[in-house]
Amino acid sequence: MYRKILLPTDFSDCAAMALGAVIGLKEAGSREVLVLHVVDIRQCEQALVGTAWVKGDPGAYLKHLKEELTVNAESKIKEIGGEIEKAGMTARTRIVTGVPFREILRAADEERVDLIVIGSHGKSNIREMMLGSVSEKVVRKARQHVLVVKQGGDEAAGEQS
Amino acid sequence: MYRKILLPTDFSDCAAMALGAVIGLKEAGSREVLVLHVVDIRQCEQALVGTAWVKGDPGAYLKHLKEELTVNAESKIKEIGGEIEKAGMTARTRIVTGVPFREILRAADEERVDLIVIGSHGKSNIREMMLGSVSEKVVRKARQHVLVVKQGGDEAAGEQS
Repeated sequence: MYRKILLPTDFSDCAAMALGAVIGLKEAGSREVLVLHVVDIRQCEQALVGTAWVKGDPGAYLKHLKEELTVNAESKIKEIGGEIEKAGMTARTRIVTGVPFREILRAADEERVDLIVIGSHGKSNIREMMLGSVSEKVVRKARQHVLVVKQGGDEAAGEQS
Repeated sequence: MYRKILLPTDFSDCAAMALGAVIGLKEAGSREVLVLHVVDIRQCEQALVGTAWVKGDPGAYLKHLKEELTVNAESKIKEIGGEIEKAGMTARTRIVTGVPFREILRAADEERVDLIVIGSHGKSNIREMMLGSVSEKVVRKARQHVLVVKQGGDEAAGEQS
């Protein structure tokens, strides 16, 4: 039913739980997973403002920052891809720069996924409290079905069994 | 993984699609489904205001209205339960009166379900536009994982195959 899944990750605990949910869907016929990490362009720009005292070209600094965050994400996203492959599904990984919910929606449409599996809360808690979480925006705007994975959901499930 | 599922329904098209998603999860080990319909107490009260010219006891009229809506829901919810049973899962049905998102959260906790499967948009479109949809509130407040089923999602999946 949900053959192709998009798994956005910000490497938070909640995103790790979403990975568990994706692997659990293998039995329902899910085969292919695209793991997506979005380097948040707004956070990069904020970091730039925070280092306004640094001499040199701000454009070059921004570029450097994005590259550093991308390199940093590479090993983490490969690890997630590896876990999916180990579970017997095919995984691709992708790192892009932009506004997270927009890039998630774009990837879901471009890749024609059947389902987006997303953690309910990411890392940017203060921003999320003010602007609504990435997952809320994805739920509202996606054309695809969205499975929202709650932090503590697995423990709750554990209690129940 | 999601052994026990709560399927709230307002008998809209989108809720019908959520039923399809629930049945699709059987392969992932889902076995037990609680189908819940909430008679919206606020709509009953609004109807009461709309008939203020009617002579007689407003309390009795409200009671009558709730009973009528409940009876009306019974055959529809039984049909949904029947479809789930036909798919080889066990189904229970329940009709309660209250505020939909609150009753959904209450049932999810009381029944210790593993997953809530809900349509993204219900029948009360104008109210939803103003106050946010029932599904948005459920996604935000539930302790359980939530699968949000989009209207048109199946057609989109059809295009992809």
